[in-house]
Amino acid sequence: MTLRMVVVGGGAAGIGAAGAAHQVAPDTTVTVYTEFEDVGYSPCGIPYVHGKEIPRFENLFLQDKAFYEQLGLDIHYDTEVTGLDLENAKITVAGEGEVSYDKLVLATGFNYADPGVPGTDLEGLYYVKNIRRAMEWDKVLDEVKTAVVVEASPLGLEMVTALAHRGIETHLVDPHPWALAEIGDPDIMQPVMDSWTDMGVIMHYNTKVEAFLGEGKVRAVQTSNGELPCDLAVICTHKQPNNRLAREAGLDIGSTGGIVVDQRMTTSKPGVFAAGDCAELPHGVTKIPIQGLSGSHAYSQGKVAGTNAVGGDRIYQPVYVPWGMVAGKWMIGGVSFGETLAKALGIPFVMGTAQGISRARYYPDMKMVKVKLLAEPGTLKLIGAQMVGGEGIKERADFLAIAVKAGITLEDLAWMENVYSPPIGALNEPIAMAAQNGLASLEKS
Amino acid sequence: MTLRMVVVGGGAAGIGAAGAAHQVAPDTTVTVYTEFEDVGYSPCGIPYVHGKEIPRFENLFLQDKAFYEQLGLDIHYDTEVTGLDLENAKITVAGEGEVSYDKLVLATGFNYADPGVPGTDLEGLYYVKNIRRAMEWDKVLDEVKTAVVVEASPLGLEMVTALAHRGIETHLVDPHPWALAEIGDPDIMQPVMDSWTDMGVIMHYNTKVEAFLGEGKVRAVQTSNGELPCDLAVICTHKQPNNRLAREAGLDIGSTGGIVVDQRMTTSKPGVFAAGDCAELPHGVTKIPIQGLSGSHAYSQGKVAGTNAVGGDRIYQPVYVPWGMVAGKWMIGGVSFGETLAKALGIPFVMGTAQGISRARYYPDMKMVKVKLLAEPGTLKLIGAQMVGGEGIKERADFLAIAVKAGITLEDLAWMENVYSPPIGALNEPIAMAAQNGLASLEKS
Repeated sequence: MTLRMVVVGGGAAGIGAAGAAHQVAPDTTVTVYTEFEDVGYSPCGIPYVHGKEIPRFENLFLQDKAFYEQLGLDIHYDTEVTGLDLENAKITVAGEGEVSYDKLVLATGFNYADPGVPGTDLEGLYYVKNIRRAMEWDKVLDEVKTAVVVEASPLGLEMVTALAHRGIETHLVDPHPWALAEIGDPDIMQPVMDSWTDMGVIMHYNTKVEAFLGEGKVRAVQTSNGELPCDLAVICTHKQPNNRLAREAGLDIGSTGGIVVDQRMTTSKPGVFAAGDCAELPHGVTKIPIQGLSGSHAYSQGKVAGTNAVGGDRIYQPVYVPWGMVAGKWMIGGVSFGETLAKALGIPFVMGTAQGISRARYYPDMKMVKVKLLAEPGTLKLIGAQMVGGEGIKERADFLAIAVKAGITLEDLAWMENVYSPPIGALNEPIAMAAQNGLASLEKS
Repeated sequence: MTLRMVVVGGGAAGIGAAGAAHQVAPDTTVTVYTEFEDVGYSPCGIPYVHGKEIPRFENLFLQDKAFYEQLGLDIHYDTEVTGLDLENAKITVAGEGEVSYDKLVLATGFNYADPGVPGTDLEGLYYVKNIRRAMEWDKVLDEVKTAVVVEASPLGLEMVTALAHRGIETHLVDPHPWALAEIGDPDIMQPVMDSWTDMGVIMHYNTKVEAFLGEGKVRAVQTSNGELPCDLAVICTHKQPNNRLAREAGLDIGSTGGIVVDQRMTTSKPGVFAAGDCAELPHGVTKIPIQGLSGSHAYSQGKVAGTNAVGGDRIYQPVYVPWGMVAGKWMIGGVSFGETLAKALGIPFVMGTAQGISRARYYPDMKMVKVKLLAEPGTLKLIGAQMVGGEGIKERADFLAIAVKAGITLEDLAWMENVYSPPIGALNEPIAMAAQNGLASLEKS
């Protein structure tokens, strides 16, 4: 009898799991349930269509439905899974009844945290997630004069940048003292905030949303520092694991609200796997569980879950979390954690910081690249990094994530070789400069 | 008594040594002799001024003479050192006589290999090196209709690209079957050569220069495949270590012609150091001595030599040679060696290749990035890499150099985490894809 695998969720993790299962064991019957109308598109691209960097939403579709049909994946669109019966290996599907499985992959994703204030039932509150809704909202944006972005989360940064780029008067409201304060250090975020000022963004830090005001439709956001009139509010609160089905079915849920999985992405119930934003994974340095990583992480986790579900053997390792994005006129990024988070977690560190350049200083379009490196006292092994700059941030973050994982030290980085060629690299690599400064600060102390 | 350090050579290595000595032991008397009119500029930028990417030669000066004076460095310009008396710790300086030293750093750089054919005494043969000559030649280029670039060395690639960009009819003559054949693999170089074709460059591979023809001034290059009329020939032959002084003084010279140094950059004579293009260093993987690396290498070696000369203790490690450059409309780069060189050296390897992209596939200005990874059979430790692409090549080459040095494997790279954000990074990192393909090819075999 052929193995029957059921996947709940059609995002990066779910499709990654379905595709991997099909690849590893082509005889498997793979069924994917998604509550949405589509799979195979990039939700991460939505802010850039709103910002007019990308001309059409259609560009975000990577595969059409026929592709998955031809692949042999049975995808049920617009279909809600309402319950899991893990004891009897069945799920309940709205409109389809009970469906049996041999292996189950939960890829139920995330929900934005409820702002928890009055007025969230008003029209004009936009949660960026589904592409069909994004297409509708994009037409609304044509009429919007003033928008409020709620919280300077990664999505919040993208949406502030997009709306400002589109020419909308954009307000950012965030309860912290600077943007992306739970991840980014203030000195890393300062150039981003300066560039937003240049772009006309009005920022309201240390400011809490108290209510959304309006009759039927939002007309203002009530904050701890006064009322902000607006035509639209974009809600960019935290991504919380969508754990309802798993929780109700009795699967172990971790401290972040994510489904607990082992390194094979197996949940507390054998034969049931979880992947993507609904699961939590240990941080490579702190071992603390974390969740809400990137689409790349979700896709990779899905592939591991799908492979193991059909008899393969793949391990998903602890995460060192290279991250990067465009915000305002800069790129920001890093790995593991920065200075602020390390202090908040009580993690001791030594630090080296340097501001370098991306090309020879005389070469056109040369950009600033600032690097902060955090290392373990004594061993000087790299444990975290943050960067802001004009180019090469993604590649450096990928590099530094491997460096943390491999136990590479400030000494190693200080004397690293680097490419020097005027149009693409400066005499001194900013990472090496930061490491040298870190070593020099140790000699002085 | 203050220590007296003499540096022969005012390029990146010489100035690096002088600056480091001054920093480590400020009381040292540091004297630098250079046969040229200037120090403190970037010769690596010259092709880009010729190519009109950089507007003025003056931009290439990083420091003026007053800067070094204020720093306390005594630089003798236009001054030739004609001999070394290592026994008595003296050098002979043209016009100054004998000068004593306590410590000596040789940073005598390189010379282009003599083409070894008739006609090299003609006018119109341009050796790209000194900025004053480059300024004069740049005026000549205004009148040049047709130029021949001799040899597809790294400088040759830059000059072909620059002259074509300037609108000069450019011929490239090279004895090998493809451009940069001693370093780059043919599949890596193919996009570069295709882009040169687009730019109007006429390439002559498997073609030897037999003579420069003309009366007083070059009017054609005689090749093994016929005569190429030209107004100018740019000689981009190999960089050979300028070892004359060292050789005549009896210092050990290695297999490449470079001065032999230990890891403290000490020559065979204690108290005498060498750094930069005049020295040879062991390759990290093959342990074979190599020379003629980048300005970044020269500068780093100079700093180690200068530090050690005045009583510091720094080690210069074997080189893994991350490299990268712009050629035609592409960036190329790599680390250690590629497929062709590994085969030529008889080094066994397993290989993984992938063509990926630099941003989300729907994001504007997304570019192709092709990665080839070579690993040691059995251990799967990375031993070399080559790349061609539209962005992020320098940063990836720096990364892969550390990866080779740290013993990172194809397994590590196949499952590496990567930044995914539409404007700066794709869902799948090309390095990871190449590693996955390498592992997949092993499973099949």
